[in-house]
Amino acid sequence: MSEPLRLGIAGLGTVGAGVVKIVRQKANLLATRTGRSIQIVAVSARNRDKDRGVRLTDFAWEDDPVALARREDVDVFVELMGGSDGPAKAATQAALDAGKDVVTANKAMLAHHGQMLAQLADEKGAVLRFEAAVAGGIPVIKALTEGLAGNEISRVMGVMNGTCNYILTRMESAGLTYGQAFAEADDLGYLEADPELDVGGIDAGHKLALLASIAFGTVVDFAGVRLEGIGKVSIDDIRQAADMGYKIKLLGVARMTGRGLEQRMAPCLVPQTSPLGQLDGGTNMVVIEGDSVGQIVMRGAGAGEGPTASAVLGDVMDIARGLRISTFGKPAVALNKAQTATVATPAPYYLRMRLLDKPGALAKVATALGDAGISINRMRQYDHTDDTAPVLIVTHKTTRDALDQAIGAMSTTGVLGSDPVALRIEEV
Amino acid sequence: MSEPLRLGIAGLGTVGAGVVKIVRQKANLLATRTGRSIQIVAVSARNRDKDRGVRLTDFAWEDDPVALARREDVDVFVELMGGSDGPAKAATQAALDAGKDVVTANKAMLAHHGQMLAQLADEKGAVLRFEAAVAGGIPVIKALTEGLAGNEISRVMGVMNGTCNYILTRMESAGLTYGQAFAEADDLGYLEADPELDVGGIDAGHKLALLASIAFGTVVDFAGVRLEGIGKVSIDDIRQAADMGYKIKLLGVARMTGRGLEQRMAPCLVPQTSPLGQLDGGTNMVVIEGDSVGQIVMRGAGAGEGPTASAVLGDVMDIARGLRISTFGKPAVALNKAQTATVATPAPYYLRMRLLDKPGALAKVATALGDAGISINRMRQYDHTDDTAPVLIVTHKTTRDALDQAIGAMSTTGVLGSDPVALRIEEV
Ligand SMILES: NC(=O)c1ccc[n+]([C@@H]2O[C@H](COP(=O)([O-])OP(=O)(O)OC[C@H]3O[C@@H](n4cnc5c(N)ncnc54)[C@H](OP(=O)(O)O)[C@@H]3O)[C@@H](O)[C@H]2O)c1
Ligand SMILES: NC(=O)c1ccc[n+]([C@@H]2O[C@H](COP(=O)([O-])OP(=O)(O)OC[C@H]3O[C@@H](n4cnc5c(N)ncnc54)[C@H](OP(=O)(O)O)[C@@H]3O)[C@@H](O)[C@H]2O)c1
Repeated sequence: MSEPLRLGIAGLGTVGAGVVKIVRQKANLLATRTGRSIQIVAVSARNRDKDRGVRLTDFAWEDDPVALARREDVDVFVELMGGSDGPAKAATQAALDAGKDVVTANKAMLAHHGQMLAQLADEKGAVLRFEAAVAGGIPVIKALTEGLAGNEISRVMGVMNGTCNYILTRMESAGLTYGQAFAEADDLGYLEADPELDVGGIDAGHKLALLASIAFGTVVDFAGVRLEGIGKVSIDDIRQAADMGYKIKLLGVARMTGRGLEQRMAPCLVPQTSPLGQLDGGTNMVVIEGDSVGQIVMRGAGAGEGPTASAVLGDVMDIARGLRISTFGKPAVALNKAQTATVATPAPYYLRMRLLDKPGALAKVATALGDAGISINRMRQYDHTDDTAPVLIVTHKTTRDALDQAIGAMSTTGVLGSDPVALRIEEV
Repeated sequence: MSEPLRLGIAGLGTVGAGVVKIVRQKANLLATRTGRSIQIVAVSARNRDKDRGVRLTDFAWEDDPVALARREDVDVFVELMGGSDGPAKAATQAALDAGKDVVTANKAMLAHHGQMLAQLADEKGAVLRFEAAVAGGIPVIKALTEGLAGNEISRVMGVMNGTCNYILTRMESAGLTYGQAFAEADDLGYLEADPELDVGGIDAGHKLALLASIAFGTVVDFAGVRLEGIGKVSIDDIRQAADMGYKIKLLGVARMTGRGLEQRMAPCLVPQTSPLGQLDGGTNMVVIEGDSVGQIVMRGAGAGEGPTASAVLGDVMDIARGLRISTFGKPAVALNKAQTATVATPAPYYLRMRLLDKPGALAKVATALGDAGISINRMRQYDHTDDTAPVLIVTHKTTRDALDQAIGAMSTTGVLGSDPVALRIEEV
């Protein structure tokens, strides 16, 4: 058996404590599988006295994660503090600078500084791995970077924020309003300290930017992600979408197009019968489309102590086994700076509106769509008790621009009882 | 950039020709991703003159795959001929003997000779990889061996024979009998030359034995797989199972129990609303359950030129990148010989029968179940026109032994109009 692999772990919260537990409890399993003993030599957190449900007295303690990252006796620095900058970034840089390998679960840091860190890792001959940062326990980074490495990837999609999926699922199944479902998620402790990270799509957007970089060999470009949160999704839309055979998901989509890289994280409709449509509750799902392999779907827990620690361990064990791959699947200097596609790929749209109960109202709406070059796939007008009639339209493929033009034209006709809601239908 | 990685490919059928195409067409992609150029130096097949839709004149030709495997200028021997013994085994052994790495898609060979070959590879310091052998394009071997390596696996399940799933799906959706659906699959060229490999569950059983070995660190034990094909699944059962909320799948299940390793490949019921229940047509699905990660579901194409070649390329690229892992995730000598669990883990069962239209008939059936210690979860008796009434029972968890005892007792009561059909309900 080779030399032990020595870990320094910074951050002993949910994920960090989980990693310590696995390394302690499964020492034999990890050693037989990797051919090396995996040992924790030093740890760091803010509060040395906190009880973390796991014994830490065998390990050296460092108050300063940067000092931990630089320790002579640490082979792999495991960053589990979080935060895009601050100590996480400083310590990661220090570790790479010292030529040490790094494993992190920190999507925010990589979404903002991934390119710089990947380049530093390459220069120093170190590896920087981050399976836990995207979709928790699902080994999707590995699948994309390694298992499917022989493919040109055309599209990656994912439901990667369990909290948002939980809120949307509760709105549907229990008929809650967005506010009620949000409050419920809050009570259950599902929300980040800053809830906008979840419901604003930022956290999921970080993950999408990382997936896109690997899938397309491009420099991580979080600023290029078109972000839209779930705050405006109404219970009406959830019900009406269901009536048309769809579910509303906070879905991330990245695809490479002739017009550049398209990255969107926004509520959209997917068919109820598709794997994405059938994903309820806090579970995550990633869909990968490659030219040879076709469509691969992966599903599992996207967060939580066990699943996230499982992903961290996967990375650590790869390092123990001698696997050395560039951070984003190819050398950082070889990653292309992709142009951002400003116009989204055409798609069918879902359109909900209320029409005033006047003769010719529907004709005016249909004319506005037709004038914008949009044809109607399905239309439903519902029974109504007040003086406006709910109307639902599913269009054939069109662009958001054409749709906005049509909506603008409708507004001038005086037949609308409310502003139309338009949601993209992602074909899956 | 390092030295090129030189491949010798034996077998130029569906998969082999697919691999050649990718290596030719994506040379740049493969080289940037691995840091090495991947080159084919020599190929072999039976018929040198056959047009395979891809240019082969740049490569040396060997009539004898064993000679190909031993060539000085070959680094990786890619075995894509098939067959558990014969040239596939001889050439694989020859390559490993010469210290060359091997990539294969051959589940039959590994199910029968996996332990011997893995041991040989370890002794010679060679690696033997087989992602394509299980669930085609889905990178499930990688997920289990690497991504989820920090987990104790409790259960692995899979729908891994697309042809069987196609037949069962067609029986359900088009109301075909087994014979009709079988004939349709045959017309479409979906069946192996020996159809028993498909419908008898043998091919899927090979895959299950490989998954089990990796999941539990045990010697591949195909003989320990309890095999049952789909030939006896009737359209009645498909319909009645649907009425109770289930689908019938040819499902492989491997789990480690206190009584030894349980491996089953048999038709069983899964909830319609589960990912397995929602899997229609030729697609494959593998479900992995680990102590830390919980449940991971992977879905994708299980066969075909592109998906299978994608998996072969994944293995080749791993080798190009220097990844060296023992065949079944730990050294072959460290794999345990698992005892075979002779009794399956208790489960609910589905029981269909016809009862003679006599007073007290149902009571007799219920008594037989009760006497065997089996309690009833749900029961339905259907309207009927002849003199026997269709009855469906879903039991609570019980053993197959208890059920057989109950069925035996029922048979002596004289109220059965037909032999009861019993199918396990796998809890997923
Ligand atoms: N939780 C999940 O399910 C999950 C899933 C995927 C990815 N992640 C990522 O994993 C990382 C950690 O998440 P978490 O949920 O484990 O967070 P957490 O429970 O809040 O734990 C953070 C840990 O970092 C320590 N820490 C913070 N600032 C520090 C500093 N300046 N010096 C030393 N230690 C410091 C904290 O110390 P104290 O304990 O002393 O305060 C705490 O132990 C984040 O990047 C997160 O995005 C988490
Ligand atoms: N097809 C799939 O979707 C799929 C999926 C997963 C795994 N696999 C596995 O992949 C392997 C190959 O499958 P396939 O579908 O590609 O088979 P195939 O189309 O029947 O091709 C077999 C190839 O092997 C060659 N061959 C047979 N005996 C040979 C010998 N003695 N010497 C040299 N070459 C020989 C044949 O040569 P000729 O062409 O000259 O006859 C042919 O090119 C099998 O192990 C199979 O189980 C296949």
